[in-house]
Parts: sequence; C-alpha cells; structure tokens
Amino acid sequence: MKLNEKGLLVIISGPSGVGKGTIRKALFEIPDNNFCYSVSMTTRKPRPGEVDGSDYFFVTREEFQKRIDENGFLEYAEFVGEYYGTPMDYIEKQMEAGKEVIVEIEVQGALQTQEKIPEAVFIFIVPPSKKALIERLKNRGTDTPEKIQKRVEKAEREYSLAYKYDYIVVNDDVHNAADRIYAIIRAEHAKTERSIHKYYKLLEGK
Amino acid sequence: MKLNEKGLLVIISGPSGVGKGTIRKALFEIPDNNFCYSVSMTTRKPRPGEVDGSDYFFVTREEFQKRIDENGFLEYAEFVGEYYGTPMDYIEKQMEAGKEVIVEIEVQGALQTQEKIPEAVFIFIVPPSKKALIERLKNRGTDTPEKIQKRVEKAEREYSLAYKYDYIVVNDDVHNAADRIYAIIRAEHAKTERSIHKYYKLLEGK
Repeated sequence: MKLNEKGLLVIISGPSGVGKGTIRKALFEIPDNNFCYSVSMTTRKPRPGEVDGSDYFFVTREEFQKRIDENGFLEYAEFVGEYYGTPMDYIEKQMEAGKEVIVEIEVQGALQTQEKIPEAVFIFIVPPSKKALIERLKNRGTDTPEKIQKRVEKAEREYSLAYKYDYIVVNDDVHNAADRIYAIIRAEHAKTERSIHKYYKLLEGK
Repeated sequence: MKLNEKGLLVIISGPSGVGKGTIRKALFEIPDNNFCYSVSMTTRKPRPGEVDGSDYFFVTREEFQKRIDENGFLEYAEFVGEYYGTPMDYIEKQMEAGKEVIVEIEVQGALQTQEKIPEAVFIFIVPPSKKALIERLKNRGTDTPEKIQKRVEKAEREYSLAYKYDYIVVNDDVHNAADRIYAIIRAEHAKTERSIHKYYKLLEGK
C-alpha cells in the first residue's frame, strides 16, 4: 500500500523576468518525475499545428461561458476579446491519477487561486539579487530605460506579496531552483495534515 | 549572498522498533550533506575508548545540575543514578555555523522539545504496516509474546500522537526514508516564514 497517492497542485509564481518558465522546463527534465503541466482552455481558434488537448483545449464561447457559470476554472481572464482559463476538472483528474500538476501563473492569478484552493502549494520565485532582476529585464529586448524602470517597480510591488506564499525559492541557478521545488513537493506529501488520515488507515490494517 | 545560512534543528522521532537509528545513519551517508549529530552530555564516567566531545560530553554532577538550573538542556533524564541530556549551547553553535542538527529522540522527549523549540522540524517515523512493526519487534531479540504485545500496545499509544508532528515519514525502505527527510530539510529552508526576512534584506541591496 502506498501513502499519499493523490498528486498535488503546485503553483509556480512570481513577477515577470524572474525565470518562472525556465525553472518549469528544468523541473520537467528531472528524471522519473510524476509532473503534469496544466493545459489551458481558450475560445480563440487553433493556429496551424496546434493540437486540441495538448497546446490548448479549444472551445466555443458558449462552452467557456458555461464553465465560468459552473465555477469550473481555477482562474481565467479575457485578452483581446478571447477567453483564456485553467480548467479545474482536468487538474482534478490528473491529481486523482497521482500526478503533480504544475501551474505557472502570474502573481494576481496565483492569489485568486489561493482563495479558491488553499491546499495547493504556492511557490514564489525571487531573483538572487535586485541587480540580477534588472539585468534580466534589460536583456529581454529593446525596452527603454523608463520601461525597464516601470517593470522593476511593478516587480517590487509584487515582491511585497511574497509573504502570502508557502515557499520562496531563489533562482540563483535554474537547476538548483528546480531541485528545490522537487524537494518541496516531496516534503509536502510527508506533511502531517496531508498524510495522517491515510496513515491511520494503513495502521488499522495488517 | 546566500539565503538561509542558519541550520535547522531536526527531530527524528517515533516509537521503538520503527527504525529511527538506521534512518539516521542512512541520512548521514547522503553525499555532501551538512548534517551534524547532537552529542549528549552525561555524568557517568567515560568507558575505555570513549572520547570527550565526540561520544559524550563528560561532566561532573555539579556542572550538569548547574546547566539544568540554567535551563540549558533541550531535554534530559536520569537513568540508574546518572544524568543524560542534550545540551542547548552545542546545538545552537552548530546551527549558527549552518549545520543541520539531527536529534534522534523518543516520543515523550520530542514532545517536551516541541514546547521548548516549536520552530524545530518534528518528523515522526512510521512503519509501512502494522505487520511490519510486529515483525521488527519480534526480530529484536528473545522477547516473550506477552512482551511483544505490550510493546505493540505502547507503540500504538505513541502513534496516536503523530498528529503533533510536522511530518510523517514511512520507513518503507531506509534510503527512501532518509531521502524524504533530506527533501523535508531543503523544503523547510524555503518556507516563507523562515526565509522572508533574509530575502527582503537581499532585495534591498544590489
């Protein structure tokens, strides 16, 4: 008999420029992992080569709206007239199958998720230093110094929300950061409040 | 700059027969670990070959009593006229030096420690099944069935205290269990309440 069969919902969050996407990719490269990436749902048309159920779940506006009314999204938003959302039932199915569902999400979306699913694991990614963050934002493209300054200020406002998260992981090195997240997932499974019920069941048997 | 320089106090506990000692040994075999085993203090005389500061800290009864009066023990007890205790200052010095201090302790002592140092990490070891526990206790020596039954009953009373711990680790395989404890230690360092102050300090700088 195995303890903690159900997977976790793991939210990787933090301001833009901190390296969430590269950490997530490194996480999925860990051998023998049990991770699953949450596929988003959208009302926009598939682009050439995009596969339904893999790149996105493509649905009609009516289907999306019905799901909103049924409270079926972890979080959703509208951009340029099209809906984008993270469907709950897909996540739940994967978790029930024992998968750790990894969701990469910006700060406001993560905090909405926290109100909805407090038992998810909320991880905030920070840069190794303020200088490193500014360098990353500078290296991103052709932004003017004013735009970079605005992004740094937005990041600083978001950093002040770090206390709402369960864990803070420093992106000093992308593989270190991914390893730390993997350790967090293993530790969370061993947490008493998550495992005690199954454990009592186990000790009742033989 | 490194986050979370200070080491943790990690209490490995659980009823007798569950394999605490073998897990602790496996933990210390993990490569590049930063663990330190807490050396006990005693008033008994050193046996041939025992080294002061390594096997035990050997002290006089007066020194031990003074330390009790100064509240200088994590926990202590008297056996057959001699004192045995876990000195606080040694633990604190190792933690300040960035070592993770591992203390292996029975259930009652662990719960006393929890009242004294709630920020320590409390890990409860459980057997993979009730049958496995009974087998372990049987294999221990030449106990009568009545004695084994008493031990199982004591273990069951202690298991009912598992909810007071932070983590429950199943000893399905000693190396798995040690790896899980290592993951818990890494995750604890990333916990927001432990790391946020250092992290804010880091982002103030450059």
